[in-house]
This record gives sequence, structure tokens and C-alpha cells, in this order.
Amino acid sequence: MTQFVIPQEQWAQVVEKSGGLPAPVYKKIPVPNPDPDEVLINIKYSGVCHTDLHALKGDWPLDRKMPLVGGHEGAGIVVAKGSLVTDIEIGDHAGIKWLNGSCLSCAFCMEGDEPLCPHALLSGYTVDGTFQQYAIGKAAHVARLPKDLDLAAVAPVLCAGITVYKGLKESNTRAGQYVAIVGAGGGLGSLALQYAKAIGLHTIAIDGGAEKGKFCKSLGAAAYVDFTTSKDLVAEVKAATPGGLGPHAVILLAVQEGPFQQATEYVRSHGAVVCIGMPAGAYLKAPVFDTVVRMINIKGSYVGNRLDTYEAIEFFRQGLIQAPFKIAPLSELPEIFKKMDAGTIVGRYVVDTNMLRG
Amino acid sequence: MTQFVIPQEQWAQVVEKSGGLPAPVYKKIPVPNPDPDEVLINIKYSGVCHTDLHALKGDWPLDRKMPLVGGHEGAGIVVAKGSLVTDIEIGDHAGIKWLNGSCLSCAFCMEGDEPLCPHALLSGYTVDGTFQQYAIGKAAHVARLPKDLDLAAVAPVLCAGITVYKGLKESNTRAGQYVAIVGAGGGLGSLALQYAKAIGLHTIAIDGGAEKGKFCKSLGAAAYVDFTTSKDLVAEVKAATPGGLGPHAVILLAVQEGPFQQATEYVRSHGAVVCIGMPAGAYLKAPVFDTVVRMINIKGSYVGNRLDTYEAIEFFRQGLIQAPFKIAPLSELPEIFKKMDAGTIVGRYVVDTNMLRG
Amino acid sequence: MTQFVIPQEQWAQVVEKSGGLPAPVYKKIPVPNPDPDEVLINIKYSGVCHTDLHALKGDWPLDRKMPLVGGHEGAGIVVAKGSLVTDIEIGDHAGIKWLNGSCLSCAFCMEGDEPLCPHALLSGYTVDGTFQQYAIGKAAHVARLPKDLDLAAVAPVLCAGITVYKGLKESNTRAGQYVAIVGAGGGLGSLALQYAKAIGLHTIAIDGGAEKGKFCKSLGAAAYVDFTTSKDLVAEVKAATPGGLGPHAVILLAVQEGPFQQATEYVRSHGAVVCIGMPAGAYLKAPVFDTVVRMINIKGSYVGNRLDTYEAIEFFRQGLIQAPFKIAPLSELPEIFKKMDAGTIVGRYVVDTNMLRG
Amino acid sequence: MTQFVIPQEQWAQVVEKSGGLPAPVYKKIPVPNPDPDEVLINIKYSGVCHTDLHALKGDWPLDRKMPLVGGHEGAGIVVAKGSLVTDIEIGDHAGIKWLNGSCLSCAFCMEGDEPLCPHALLSGYTVDGTFQQYAIGKAAHVARLPKDLDLAAVAPVLCAGITVYKGLKESNTRAGQYVAIVGAGGGLGSLALQYAKAIGLHTIAIDGGAEKGKFCKSLGAAAYVDFTTSKDLVAEVKAATPGGLGPHAVILLAVQEGPFQQATEYVRSHGAVVCIGMPAGAYLKAPVFDTVVRMINIKGSYVGNRLDTYEAIEFFRQGLIQAPFKIAPLSELPEIFKKMDAGTIVGRYVVDTNMLRG
Repeated sequence: MTQFVIPQEQWAQVVEKSGGLPAPVYKKIPVPNPDPDEVLINIKYSGVCHTDLHALKGDWPLDRKMPLVGGHEGAGIVVAKGSLVTDIEIGDHAGIKWLNGSCLSCAFCMEGDEPLCPHALLSGYTVDGTFQQYAIGKAAHVARLPKDLDLAAVAPVLCAGITVYKGLKESNTRAGQYVAIVGAGGGLGSLALQYAKAIGLHTIAIDGGAEKGKFCKSLGAAAYVDFTTSKDLVAEVKAATPGGLGPHAVILLAVQEGPFQQATEYVRSHGAVVCIGMPAGAYLKAPVFDTVVRMINIKGSYVGNRLDTYEAIEFFRQGLIQAPFKIAPLSELPEIFKKMDAGTIVGRYVVDTNMLRG
Repeated sequence: MTQFVIPQEQWAQVVEKSGGLPAPVYKKIPVPNPDPDEVLINIKYSGVCHTDLHALKGDWPLDRKMPLVGGHEGAGIVVAKGSLVTDIEIGDHAGIKWLNGSCLSCAFCMEGDEPLCPHALLSGYTVDGTFQQYAIGKAAHVARLPKDLDLAAVAPVLCAGITVYKGLKESNTRAGQYVAIVGAGGGLGSLALQYAKAIGLHTIAIDGGAEKGKFCKSLGAAAYVDFTTSKDLVAEVKAATPGGLGPHAVILLAVQEGPFQQATEYVRSHGAVVCIGMPAGAYLKAPVFDTVVRMINIKGSYVGNRLDTYEAIEFFRQGLIQAPFKIAPLSELPEIFKKMDAGTIVGRYVVDTNMLRG
Repeated sequence: MTQFVIPQEQWAQVVEKSGGLPAPVYKKIPVPNPDPDEVLINIKYSGVCHTDLHALKGDWPLDRKMPLVGGHEGAGIVVAKGSLVTDIEIGDHAGIKWLNGSCLSCAFCMEGDEPLCPHALLSGYTVDGTFQQYAIGKAAHVARLPKDLDLAAVAPVLCAGITVYKGLKESNTRAGQYVAIVGAGGGLGSLALQYAKAIGLHTIAIDGGAEKGKFCKSLGAAAYVDFTTSKDLVAEVKAATPGGLGPHAVILLAVQEGPFQQATEYVRSHGAVVCIGMPAGAYLKAPVFDTVVRMINIKGSYVGNRLDTYEAIEFFRQGLIQAPFKIAPLSELPEIFKKMDAGTIVGRYVVDTNMLRG
Repeated sequence: MTQFVIPQEQWAQVVEKSGGLPAPVYKKIPVPNPDPDEVLINIKYSGVCHTDLHALKGDWPLDRKMPLVGGHEGAGIVVAKGSLVTDIEIGDHAGIKWLNGSCLSCAFCMEGDEPLCPHALLSGYTVDGTFQQYAIGKAAHVARLPKDLDLAAVAPVLCAGITVYKGLKESNTRAGQYVAIVGAGGGLGSLALQYAKAIGLHTIAIDGGAEKGKFCKSLGAAAYVDFTTSKDLVAEVKAATPGGLGPHAVILLAVQEGPFQQATEYVRSHGAVVCIGMPAGAYLKAPVFDTVVRMINIKGSYVGNRLDTYEAIEFFRQGLIQAPFKIAPLSELPEIFKKMDAGTIVGRYVVDTNMLRG
């Protein structure tokens, strides 16, 4: 059996206070010990997600641990495990995702709705996350990563990938049907286009600008609708579907009130508008008459469960999903957050926990 | 084979102009002839539904036939049929419902979503309805009525019954789960309570006043929440469900913004809020964050298809559904509309097309 | 917090050798200690199921623990628990069922198919069961029993009840549809009739003899077909359904080749024949042509998962399920097995672990 | 509006007697007239299916029309239509499939199970089919063919394509899962491989010989198992799936007892074995114990409904399905049947109704 030397201390990015845009502090902290149902993972790479920024700023009506090590897209190597863990071996590759653990026994967990478990542990939010070299995960929940996967490349799949894949599943569409992706040219959007294609859906990409259009088409979009130039977006989206009936579902990756209301107008009757993005304080709004006589379905989709995680990673392993990313040292996390807050990041950052300052 | 003498003329209530609350005119008009795929039904009784009032007043953004014979809950006897009709015999009992006909071939009809057919014919709206002695129905769509059913009693099932039954099906709940019915003490509500019970659901009735509470309990409601006296309706509804997790679905029979927003608060995570009522100009509104992290499903439900119709009538035939009603002569329809518009009707009126003025 | 004095030793019925019909030995053995994810239950009552006889005799192609304490329908009080168990308190009532534990992490467990887990622990088969005063159960799997339930009465629900309820769920029927129950007058059958009624299904009971007919009708069967007197069972079953199309599903509680083949003949097209009983060495056999053009679905249903367990107990708690039983002392288990093997038992035995020899 | 000159007489292949392998007679017969709900199609090409041979020989326990014009994979141009047909225009392209018509109103039609309609009309079996120049189809059932489709190439899709696509839908699998195709190298098999790929499934092709293996791999099979050389077919199929758990479903295109029994052994627990082929007199047989504890689902799948037809053609239109075929004159049909009966045909024949003897 493989053995690893586990240090007493490790480098971590620690959030120590609330309010404004607090910079996490890069410092040494103790390496934690796993409980009987936990594993300790030597995190090699961790994606930086917009949710981490929300967590840092305290944007959501949900309490955080403080001080806090953020991060929830971490991939690495299992170096220790509790006495009850029999299906993971030391040396296996594994990932820590937003849902660090759940009780596995409540009404929600029993139905596979683990993300809705009232006792859910959230990585980088209610428990320490992956912006450190050694992180704890509940064994039942850590993502199993085949050893042939690039740990840096798979990191963003662990949150962004699973989330859009789950949203597509929640849309209740099937192969051969049409799905509109609002915000298709962004990070989540480009993953959504690829997952949709992998499961046999046709996609209508909606975003702004010719460059994004080219990008979306390169990822397999059947049509691109540019909201910056379209004279009648609703009509254009419908025209891109058979019989002009509209897409069977819409995946909303950025919920502003505008795109949301348009979505309920162009979605096919008895179709679904799936909201994934969560801008602080936003509201959904739809006219009752149309919602009823067209039997429209508006639903929220959160993160995936363990099965969704397995499946999303499998599609990635088969080479069907490309998630472009840039690598930076863990020490540079505060700069990444600043850029993210300013909206100047294109693509996804992955921090390397072993890299010296670049 | 039974033969019927069909007169040239018949009594009907005809709407001849738009605007305000126009009284329909009680007069003699020709009896229509069925096309090859139609039947002619000698209407014996027709329920008077709130939708008829909306049609009369032109409340909805949907064009009506004019002049118009309203009515879409008609039960009677088939007296003539077209050459292609092989599965209905002269003398059979049948009902005409809101959906008079659909193309049966479009993308929606092929999936059983006949109410969403773009070529749908609506009784008492785009084609003449059941406020006359002889009405036409597309054979494929008329409700088959077993001969042991009371034609007056079954009339309200043909719209109100089917509609709430469909809403319950759209809620995706299963036997043993909990459903809250908002407006449970009204006409639709009392039917919803009974259909819910028949399919094994537990109901939480929500309405105002002690009398309605008693009524709802008598129809099998597991709990009653009185919005006129409740100090915390959301908490009370949740407390009536196992583990306080909230009902698996909410059936909204009256959509004002208040009850709708409360529904999204007390519905169980991953549960459905099903809107059936259609007040003119109303909007649904829900906070994005909660909708997403609790994976709430907001959906509109319209009327039933032919299968829903068959099933809703079967439950009625088995004696599981009681729909109390009052009989009045067809000639008194204008007075009924006046009362309905004033909101002074309790229970459902059924007009008798053969009754002399009472 | 409640505290219990746990003895070092306890009375148990221990199977010590294979072959023939070995009598279990009534003797004192040590009380086991729970692991971190386990609870120790002071078993008050344990139902005696036909499966226990199969286990005793080694009828199935599946290895048993030896020596073995049998039993898998045990209800009692939690007296100790491991360090990881947070959602069960000492003093809670709980039940041990056939599925003692599963890994909760494999491909099957993740989808709620815990009974198919390759690492499943089977009570009274691969781990010691409930024919003893103190039994171990994996905390995630023990059935939560509300304290208002009679522990003797609920015991048979823990296997027989859950199993037939699961079979009904696997039949993919919905309220208002028809299900034939083959062997409706027996122990499993009478439970199946009641669960079917609770979820809104109409039942056609099939069994032999007038007395069983009376019994089935008293439990709500819509029709009774007596195979000892019927001249054409297939025709009679079909005649008991709307339009003579046959029941939407058949629940086969005793699979001999005869009833099985009849079932595929009278089941409605696109309907399901669900096999639950497992006679040693039996085979299913069906003609290909009919199976294909009528799109018949033949499926095996095993035991329920944790959600099915919760739901089956809930229906019992609401008073919808009556499972008649006789109480005998644990010490008399060998006599019960002898009667069972001889086929002379009517109804279900429940052994009392505290009763002195009667 | 396009107008077509319709002749009084036409060439047809007419079966005039039963017994043995009767050669159809190539002769002139009258062109039929459409009823109000029918269209008349000038058939350009008609595929020759194994079912046509069964029909010719009278292999099945199902009555045929006699004399009979066979054929049920016909593609052509609508040249006349009945008065009720509003959604098809003269000049449109359309196809006639096995299911020529159904009542659209019975319990099965209402649920989209049109192939199970007791009043179903079967092309080339209970009504005249497509081995003639002008054939009648019920308007609601004729396949709508976009004008950019090659009428010869689409002909085999109208039966073979739809049938395997339906079988895949009935398997209840979803994108990313594994399906074994038994008989993958044959005509139906190669279509099944392509449809499976189009909807995101991974396929394990099972057939005999290295050449078929190469062919199956070229169509996207993830693995090929050669039953002529495999030492342990069950083990080999399971090894080709993640964790060795076996494929989620098996599509049986040739049901002999051997492959069927193997399928129930290697299919994943809770998976489905879908039978499509219908050899005369064959039986399905499976051990009860294994079927129950592994919750295996054995189901028959017949032909598709109208929605399946639309979807199967859509996948073809998008270029995802290639169905190689050879064209022969209609007059040569008897020779094709002789070869088919002798088992010497590789690939599919399509007869051209306008071609002079080649």
C-alpha cells in the first residue's frame, strides 16, 4: 500500500474577517485529521469559482464559517482516511466539491437530493475548502477521479461542469430536442454547450458579440443569437427550432430580469426554463396567463448529487468536454479575486498549491 | 339502432357584442350539422364556469368567435354523427369540454399535449359551445360518459374536475405525499381535495374562515390553515407536514401575488408550485436565490387532455368525487352571470336546456 | 438522555449447521458492540418470514454466515450507538430489516438501489439477525419507527409490507389503474391488497376458495377470481377491467409456471408482470411474439430501499394497513419453522424475545 | 397548388394465395381513392423488410388481407388527399410505415401507444401496402418527410430505423450509459449502433466474425464481442462496462434462446433486456431467483408511434444515420424474397416502383 508523509503544517489562504472585499491571508496552518468517515486529500489544484467570490464577500443569506479556507473545486491525492472508509485507497485521486458532505439518511439524501440535505457541509463555506494543501472531505462525497485525468484540467469540472450538467438533467429534455443556453459564451455556458452536445441535444447559443458566436459555433451550437444585434430575440430563437415552436428548455446562466422574461416568451409550450445563476437580490417574474395556458415550467437548479458528479466526470474523461483554464500559484488568489470582482477575467483560473510565486 | 328526431331550430344563449358585461340573448338558432369527424350532442345540462364569464367579458388576450354561444361543460346524448365516427353510437352519452377539438397530428397532440395544439378549438370561445340544446363536438374529443352517470352532476366535472385533476398530475407527487391546496374551500378547491384523496395524497387545505375549515375537513383534508387568523401561515403549513419540511406540492387555485409568494416559501425543497387560476394581468414573482438553492419548480397547468378526461370521469363514476350544484333553466343564464360577476355565487350552477323558466 | 443497562449476555436462536431442516439452538450468547456507524437495538419482537426458512435450509445460491442468528423483521429500542450516529437517539424505536446495511457509495446505492449493493449486509443471512434480544444494525439503514407504533404489529411490515409496496411501485401504475394480485389471500397478498388501495389502485384478487374471496373483498378488492372454480381465468380477469383490456400490472406473489404464463396472457398491453416470490429453481417463460407485439414488461422486484421503508411504515402508521399476526415466545421458533415447512401456518408469527415459554 | 395526374391503373406486386413461399404476382390493378382522412401517395421507393417475408409466408398468428399488396417502408409524394386533411399539401413528401392507421381515440392511442391500438391498420398486412405505385395512408399516420431527404435512402428508416430507435427508448437508458446490441452487425443492428450513438449511449456490439467487428467499430461501438471466438461471452460483455457491472440495457435483435439467456446474465442489475426480433415460435426463459434479486426487466418492444417516427427521421435528416441499401426494380421482388428466405441477402433492398426491369 502506498504511504505518504503528511506534514504537520501547510500553506493556506485564510479569510479572517467579513465585510467589503477582504483579501484572504496566505499563511501556514495545521493539517487536519480525518474522522472515521472522512479522507484527507493533498490538494494539487483548485479552480476559482464565482461562488468563492460570493463566499468571500458574504453576498448570500447563508452563514459562513469564520475564519474560513475557501475553495470547492479541488483535485488531488488521498493521503489518509478514516477507519470506516473501505472503498477508497490511499493514493487514489479524488476531488472535493461544493457539497463536502451530507447526512445520507434524511428525506432528501434518501432520494438522491443530497444538495438539499439540511445537514449538508459546504466546502469553503461551512467547512474549510480547497485553497489549502491538505483538505478534508467526507468519503461518501469526494469525487472519484480516474488516474488518467489531468488534475488541473478536471478541477473546474468539479463545480462548473457538474452544475451545468445537473441543470441539463433538470430540464427534462431528451436527445434530439432543442435547448437554448443564455450566456453560452461564458465559462459555464461553454461547458453547457458541450454537455448538451454529449447527451444528444441541439443547442441555441445566446450571448453578445460576434467573437462569442464563433466560439459557440465551434463548440457545436446549432444556432447563435446575438442579443447585442438581434432586432427580435424571441422571434430569432424560435425560428432556430423545428416548426418555430421554440426550444424545449432554456438554461439561464445569468439571471437578470430581462433574459428571464424573454426566456418564458420563447420557450416551447410545456417546456422548462431552468435558472442556475444566482445574482444577489434578483427576482423571477412571469405573467400568470401565459405560464398557465402554455404550461411553462420555471425551475431552479442547484449543484449535482454524487451520481451527477460521477456522470459529469465520465463525459469529461471520454474527451467530450474541454474546459480551458489558466494556472496561477495559490499565493496569488487575492489578485484573482480582485480581477473577478472587477469583471476582467476571461476563462477560468486554477490555483496550483505547490507552485512558487510565478 | 336508436334514432332521434332532430329539429331544425333550437334555443340558445347567444353573445352578440363585446364590451362590459354583455347579456347573452336567449333566442332560436339553427341546429348545426356534424362534419365527417364530428358528433351532434343534444345537450341536457351545462355547467357555468368562471371561464364563461371571462369569455363573455373578453378578459383574455385571445380572440373569440362573435356572435358566440358560450359554455364548455355540457353533457347530453349523441343524436347524429359524421361518416368517419365508428367508436361512438347514436344514443351514447357524451360531454363537450373546453377543448372541443385539436388536430391530433401536431407536435403537441402527438405527445398527448392536446390542450397546447395550435389548432385547438375551444368550446364557447372559438367555436359555439354548450349553452344551446344541440352542440357540435369533434368525435375524438368528446368525453365518453357511461350511461349510469347523472348528466347534471357530471357536467361540472367536465371542466372544473378535469382541470384540478390535471393540476395534481402535473405536480409530480405520488401517493403518501402532501399537497397544499390554496383556495381549498371553493368550487375548484373542494374538487381538488377529493381528487387528491382518491389518488392517495394527504392534503393541507388553505382558505379563510371556520366554516370553510369544517367543510375542507369533511372532504378529507389532513389539516386546515385559516389565512384570516393564522399568525404565521408559512410556519403553520410546514408544521402540518412530516418533519416540517413543507408539502411536496402546492396547488394554487387563486393566484394573487400574496399566496403565490408564500407558496414558494413553504413548499418543500425540490417541490412544485402549480398555478391553475388565471386572474387577468397577474404576475408570478419569486426570489432567484431561494428558487435555485431549494430547486423549486413553478409551473402552470392548463386543462386536461383526453386521457385526463377519461380518468377524472372514472374517479367520479366510482363515487369518489362529489360536486354540489344548483340547477337553473338555460333562460336564466344572464342572471347567473350577473351574480358571478358580483361574486355572490356559492357553489356551481348547472343550466338545464329543457327546463321552462322556473 | 435515556440510559439503558445493557447485559453482557442474551438469549438467541442460533443456527449451527447446514443441511436438511436444522433446528436453531436456543442459547445464551454475548451481546455485540456497535461500530461507529451502527446502533444496538434491544429487539422486542421479530416476525418470522418464509425467507428465514429458506435461509435455515440453505435453499438459495447465496452464501450464509455460519453459525447464524436468523431473523430480519425485528422491532425494538435503540440502546447504544456508534460515535458517528447523530440522527438517532438512545431510546428511539427502530427496526432491522433484510437489508441490514449497504455501502451507500456504490453505483447502486447512489441511485437508491441499495438492495442491489454488492456490499449489502443481509440480516439473518450474512450478518446476525433479529432472533436474539440485542441486534446490530447499520444506523443509515435501520427503520425509524414512530413511538406510537405497536412494535409487535409493525414487525411484519418491515419485510412483507415493504416488499409488496416496492413491487407495486415497480409496476409503474398510477392511481385509478387496475392491478391483479396473484396469491391475494395469503400473507403477502393481503398486504398487497391494502397497499394497492392506499395508493389509489383497483385490485383484482386471484386465489383459491370462497373463504379467501370473502377475505380479499373485505380488504377492498374490486373483484375476486377463484382459480379453483374459474372456467377461463384469463377471460375472467380481463372482464374485471375497463373495456376488458386487462390489468395494467400483475403482482405475482407465488411464481409457479402456470400463474406466470397466465399473467402474461391477461396483463394489459404495455403492462407489467412483477415477480416477487422466489420458489427454488423456478423459471419464467413467455412467448416472444406476444411479448413483443403487446410490449409486455416482465420484471423482478426484490426488497425496498430506505425510502420505500419509510413510506411503507407511514401507510401503516396512518392505519391503512392491517397485518394480522400471532405472538409466540422466541424459544418456540423451531416449532414455528416445522409448521412453516409443513405448510400448515395461516397468518404470520411474531416471536417475543422477552416472553417466557407460553 | 401543385396538381398531379393520377392514372386509373398502376403496377403492383400482389400476393394471391397462402401457403409455402408464394411468389407475388406483378400486375396492373386499380389506383385506390383516399377517404376523407386519408392521403394517396405515389410511392417512389419501398424497402423490403424481413417482416414482409413473414407476411408472405403467413408465419404469425395474425390474420392477413388476401389478396394482398405487401410492403411497409414506402416513400413518395402525396398526390391526393381527403377533405379533412389540412396539415398535408399535395406535393408533400410522405412515407407509409407498418402502422398505416389507428383509431387515435382508444385507451392506447390516447397514451401514444398507437401500435397497440386494437383497430390498427397494418400496411402490407391488413391493408394494402407499398409494393405498388400508389398507396393509401391514414393522414394522421403517414410519416412527414422533409423534401431534402433522398426518398430511396429514407425508406428503410421507416421501419427498421423507427423500430430500433423505439427499442432504445423503451430501454429507459440515458446518455452516458452502456447498451449491448445483440446482432449489431446486421441491418437492424447497424442502425441501432448509430441511433444509440446519436442519443449519447455507449454501445457494446455483439455479433460473429472479425469483419462484423470492424464494421461495428466503424459505426462507433465502444467494444465488440465476437460470439464465435469468445471463451466467456458474459464475462467479456461485463468487462466492457465501468466497474464490470454490465450494460444498463441489452437490445436483442435476434431472439434465440441462447443469446436471450446470456443477456439476462450480463445485463446490469435493475437493467432491461429489450426484445425486438420475433422468430416464429420462440420463447423467453429466465431463472426467477436471479430475475428477482437483480430486479431484471425483460420487455418486448414493437414498432414506434408517430412521435418516434418523427424523431427517428429527424436523426436521419441530421446525417447521423446511414442505412446502406441496394436498389432493384419492383418487378424483381419475388427474387428478393427468394434470396431473403435462403438467408443470402447482405444489407437491405429497396425496390423502385418506376424502374424498368434492370
